[in-house]
Amino acid sequence: MTRTVGIVGVGLIGGSVAAAVKSREPSTRVVGFGRDAARLEACRSAGLIDEGRTDFGGAEDLDVAVVATPVDRIAADVRSVAAACRDAAVVTDAGSVKASIVADLEADPPERATFVGAHPLAGSAKQGFEHAEADLFDGRPCVVTPGAAPREAVDRVVTFWRGLGADVVELDPQGHDEALAFTSHLPHLVAAALAATAGPRADLRLASTGFGDTTRIAGGDPALWLEIVRSNRDAVIDALHAFHDHCGRVIASIDGEDDLAGLAALLEEGRSARRAFESLAGRR
Amino acid sequence: MTRTVGIVGVGLIGGSVAAAVKSREPSTRVVGFGRDAARLEACRSAGLIDEGRTDFGGAEDLDVAVVATPVDRIAADVRSVAAACRDAAVVTDAGSVKASIVADLEADPPERATFVGAHPLAGSAKQGFEHAEADLFDGRPCVVTPGAAPREAVDRVVTFWRGLGADVVELDPQGHDEALAFTSHLPHLVAAALAATAGPRADLRLASTGFGDTTRIAGGDPALWLEIVRSNRDAVIDALHAFHDHCGRVIASIDGEDDLAGLAALLEEGRSARRAFESLAGRR
Repeated sequence: MTRTVGIVGVGLIGGSVAAAVKSREPSTRVVGFGRDAARLEACRSAGLIDEGRTDFGGAEDLDVAVVATPVDRIAADVRSVAAACRDAAVVTDAGSVKASIVADLEADPPERATFVGAHPLAGSAKQGFEHAEADLFDGRPCVVTPGAAPREAVDRVVTFWRGLGADVVELDPQGHDEALAFTSHLPHLVAAALAATAGPRADLRLASTGFGDTTRIAGGDPALWLEIVRSNRDAVIDALHAFHDHCGRVIASIDGEDDLAGLAALLEEGRSARRAFESLAGRR
Repeated sequence: MTRTVGIVGVGLIGGSVAAAVKSREPSTRVVGFGRDAARLEACRSAGLIDEGRTDFGGAEDLDVAVVATPVDRIAADVRSVAAACRDAAVVTDAGSVKASIVADLEADPPERATFVGAHPLAGSAKQGFEHAEADLFDGRPCVVTPGAAPREAVDRVVTFWRGLGADVVELDPQGHDEALAFTSHLPHLVAAALAATAGPRADLRLASTGFGDTTRIAGGDPALWLEIVRSNRDAVIDALHAFHDHCGRVIASIDGEDDLAGLAALLEEGRSARRAFESLAGRR
């Protein structure tokens, strides 16, 4: 069983990993690593971590380290924490992109501990450990990218994420990024474009639950999403082109002479896909 | 005080009006009008209505009638129920578009009762009175379009919707349709296009809360939404063009040489609009 878990970057995701570990394995010691001593102390006072450190001095005790920093910092943070760990430790991450991080770490591999990438598909437009939730990963997908890691290390990382309630799916980094471009990155850009289109043009008092649902993730941090898009540029452009073409066909159908046949087909396709999504996880 | 309320079309919206009336004014008699006697009887057994009728024979007792049928049937149903009411009755509706309905009713006005259009901005992807909710309108916007109706009739309709908990906004039909094209019709088409784009291209096991929120309304009835778009074609095309252009700019920014400056601006605009929406109604 895991006895000491390190969290590098104790924000919403890192804090939720800490909360989930504490909730499910109360005897596990959780060490938070970050740059801001005051934030770490607040996090410790809130009971999410047992100790906060602004260096990796305490990392030799870790069994598992989770790097939950923004995607453009993950590879460097993985190298830093891995080098401070024991050889037997495993390091995983929670980054929304995988191929660029894995490529970076393959080109310049971490010393000592073994890295196995992961992406728990759970989140919120909120930021900061104050919004951490112990059940954030419960019943949610978590992609693990085995790469070239020894199976034993992969199994330990899979077991770790399963231990937080996640449904683990193993996938190669490129497959992850291509899928997430459609299921996460495109929805984020669409939500932002929708809010940005409607905001200046319509009285938002006349917006209700549909607008609220469709634009919720537009409340996310622009800087984080900019780095996600930058790190998955080709797949995101592919997804955007496909979506843009769909929208163009909707305009052509409404503007044209097909008596809305094209729009009717799209609405049916959209409902089918939505139902497929709902039935996959019993979500409503 | 209202004593007898008629509901023409007892589906999700009509059923929720009935439930809200029963919950807030238990002494009020509610009569449901529809085409399917068995459905009306089921609705009566469920306690939503006191009586179900497949003709307008009982309409002479109504103080208020609410027409909650699909948008392409509203004008005809308003004429039918109004002609069967007393002169003192008011008829309102719950249609998602207003200009075409009001124009139809101005060209061929209803006899006897006075019509005052309305649109409670509340809904669900679910259908049928089985999913009716007594608090569906509580704290939600409801547009009332006074048109040429006497102020006394407008006030009674405003009072009726306020009585169900709605925040009433008075607006002309064209202004309603132009705003809703951005705040409701566009989000629906975007959600459908997003689901239709991602469904065939990505493993939907790798979709989580962001995809779930953004595509929720794609589960709605395609036939209903086709009629809404058909009835508000010009405003919807205007909104779609604005959105399509925004998406094109996102593609150009990611594909281009501006180091994602265009995308960064869009993400900020999207977050600002989202925050404006949230602060307007204290929604999260």
